[in-house]
Amino acid sequence: MRLSRYFLPVLKETPSEAQIASHRLMLRAGMIKQASAGIYSWLPLGFKVLRKLENIVHEEQIRAGHVPMLMPTLQSAELWKESGRYDAYGPEMLRIRDRQDRDMLYGPTNEEMITDIFRSHVNSYKDLPLTLYHVQWKFRDEIRPRFGVMRGREFFMKDGYNFDLTKEDALHAYNRHLVSYLRTYERMGLQAIPMRADSGPIGGDDTHEFLVLAETGESEVFYDSQITELTFGDREIDYDSVEACQAVMEEFTSRYARTDETHDEAVFAEVPEERRRVARGIEVGQIFYFGTKYSDAMGATVQGPDGKSVPVHMGSHGIGVSRLVGAIIEANHDDRGIIWPEGVTPFHVGIVNLKSGDAEADAACDALYSAFVSKGLEPLLDDTNERAGGKFATMDLIGLPWRITVGPRGLKNGVVEVTSRRTGESEEMSPEAAIEKIVGIYAAL
Amino acid sequence: MRLSRYFLPVLKETPSEAQIASHRLMLRAGMIKQASAGIYSWLPLGFKVLRKLENIVHEEQIRAGHVPMLMPTLQSAELWKESGRYDAYGPEMLRIRDRQDRDMLYGPTNEEMITDIFRSHVNSYKDLPLTLYHVQWKFRDEIRPRFGVMRGREFFMKDGYNFDLTKEDALHAYNRHLVSYLRTYERMGLQAIPMRADSGPIGGDDTHEFLVLAETGESEVFYDSQITELTFGDREIDYDSVEACQAVMEEFTSRYARTDETHDEAVFAEVPEERRRVARGIEVGQIFYFGTKYSDAMGATVQGPDGKSVPVHMGSHGIGVSRLVGAIIEANHDDRGIIWPEGVTPFHVGIVNLKSGDAEADAACDALYSAFVSKGLEPLLDDTNERAGGKFATMDLIGLPWRITVGPRGLKNGVVEVTSRRTGESEEMSPEAAIEKIVGIYAAL
Repeated sequence: MRLSRYFLPVLKETPSEAQIASHRLMLRAGMIKQASAGIYSWLPLGFKVLRKLENIVHEEQIRAGHVPMLMPTLQSAELWKESGRYDAYGPEMLRIRDRQDRDMLYGPTNEEMITDIFRSHVNSYKDLPLTLYHVQWKFRDEIRPRFGVMRGREFFMKDGYNFDLTKEDALHAYNRHLVSYLRTYERMGLQAIPMRADSGPIGGDDTHEFLVLAETGESEVFYDSQITELTFGDREIDYDSVEACQAVMEEFTSRYARTDETHDEAVFAEVPEERRRVARGIEVGQIFYFGTKYSDAMGATVQGPDGKSVPVHMGSHGIGVSRLVGAIIEANHDDRGIIWPEGVTPFHVGIVNLKSGDAEADAACDALYSAFVSKGLEPLLDDTNERAGGKFATMDLIGLPWRITVGPRGLKNGVVEVTSRRTGESEEMSPEAAIEKIVGIYAAL
Repeated sequence: MRLSRYFLPVLKETPSEAQIASHRLMLRAGMIKQASAGIYSWLPLGFKVLRKLENIVHEEQIRAGHVPMLMPTLQSAELWKESGRYDAYGPEMLRIRDRQDRDMLYGPTNEEMITDIFRSHVNSYKDLPLTLYHVQWKFRDEIRPRFGVMRGREFFMKDGYNFDLTKEDALHAYNRHLVSYLRTYERMGLQAIPMRADSGPIGGDDTHEFLVLAETGESEVFYDSQITELTFGDREIDYDSVEACQAVMEEFTSRYARTDETHDEAVFAEVPEERRRVARGIEVGQIFYFGTKYSDAMGATVQGPDGKSVPVHMGSHGIGVSRLVGAIIEANHDDRGIIWPEGVTPFHVGIVNLKSGDAEADAACDALYSAFVSKGLEPLLDDTNERAGGKFATMDLIGLPWRITVGPRGLKNGVVEVTSRRTGESEEMSPEAAIEKIVGIYAAL
């Protein structure tokens, strides 16, 4: 993309309404614009990141054997009356009446609807196991929306639902989700720690929240510092293997890590003192096993191997996709702006032309631009007439991991400058070497 | 995908509520399930097609130089009061009151919101031309939703908005959209004819609707049969060239082609009688130039080259993405089911194992499956225990363009059978030849 043809309305001033870094930086970098309280338009740069996260979520869910579909945003109140949650949900549910005076609502989650789909079509244990998921806009009418996309009212979420014959099978689905989530967050450049949590209005016994450590997190968390040394890395996993998934689950949940809702001072005291940590975290996902709560209430049964009808065991599993954009920024920024992890950066490399209009500089920039495009990377070329200082400030603000600076002086010596946004270190090299270096970095992801 | 692990709830019975072929077939093929009147869940097969169409739309819009973003589904009533459409829109607008008693609505379109974004961030003609678009769920509270996704209430639409300094520039944007839409529909295997139409509540003078000819179309259309001989084909186009885009526009709109709203019997009579056609069409897109209607009402101005403030010239341009799924089926089906065009098929090839459990047949199917995956294609392997007749009926119903049938008898002779869904013709060949043939067909798209 050439900046002269893009829509990147960066702000010079820090917006006064933004209290946390990610909100400030998303506004300043022209990623979002508030449409109403807690409701945002995703401007081109923001949308690009959101879409990348959505694609990573899809890839990892499909890898785990889960099946994508899409449920609508608006739901009939009927199903929620059946489960008993219509009255229980409270004022965070946005209730709507349509022109025929039917009670509708903007879905905050989809347990009822997916259970209805399941019971309409599945009758036999032979069709299990089954995990269906979607990535769709949700709405929760928060009384005090704030922190930008971190606590918005309209938000983009992946929610998945497993249907299994037995509790054991459902716990395997639980573990499969845990593994797939670890992979998902790591690909986004995040360390998200599974912590024992409270199930809240979804119900159920087994649940873990995934938390990204950040000073601005809404939850107080307590953990054994050993857990931060764990990474899933590039190990292969067979998602069909009960033992393999169970082993990962145990590895990542056997150390103390809890939110304040489930924190137990006595158990925490057993962790060696030098490893006890109290910090704040941002919740970016949650997995639940809730047994037959919804299948009982809504009659979602299958015929088992013995011919008897049994309610299916279910769980639900969510990733907050829009909130993740904020969480990634909370965990990756400095005074000058955002620092995107390579896995989610909106553009792979920024090219700054120090002297737009200079024939040689323009040609060198165009050649770099075309070379990256031909290698399947997306460069952002600042071909505007702004002065160099302004161009650097914009590149730092929007946080592309790599910048190539092209100017007439360097070109005389056959070099351009390659700068890492994270370390700030610069290196001069030939344009060919710069291409090779950056293409290599992304190829290794 | 192995069918035993998928969720494909095909129906044996024809659902009684469905009046047209696409609705019937989408229900029978397990693509959708009604959630409430005019609101559908997209089951896995349906979602796959929907996502493919969305991706084609994105690719062609980006190719035309238009910039993707994403606006929310819910809008504040304030902006609509500013433009005067809040009262004008009527009961099709779903009006919502949130917990703070603010007037909201589920966006049926986004002229107001995009104009607000524009006026908040763009001040100079130097930032023009600019075309922003998104693909997002919309809602129109139809009094009688019907025909499945063809006339639903919650629907998925691409809407784009151009901002230009002059009428001439805006008309170039209009032509650019016309060209990009021709390409988009052809990639989906559709002939969509641009027809002079009425602007309705959007306002403006210049507008074309794109119509797919089909007996079940909601509009009566009148056209010169010569227009059906035109194709955009694989010609290259420079979207920056005013002349090139203008030439395509003239080529595709100079013959008589109008909906009943703008039909003029006297002008139609000038078409030679043997070329006059009266038929029915499904509207799958519309482009508008409406000048300064919204920029005047909402103060969207830029400073021109002479320093004076002028309202921008705008247009809006829509593609009905969810309704296109229905339109493609209306134009591509037979008594046995759907016949997907190769460009949009949910899976590239179906593999039918005539004898699941037979070691040789299973191994041959697995080898074919892996070969297609390694070539970047998505096969659907029916590895269930259903009898052959049922497997064929399902494959015909869901309409994959190519089927490979694998059975012990053929394998003895070293062959499998390759069948075209469209022609019904079958050919025996070695598994290697079958792979080469099908990979070649998709590589040529």
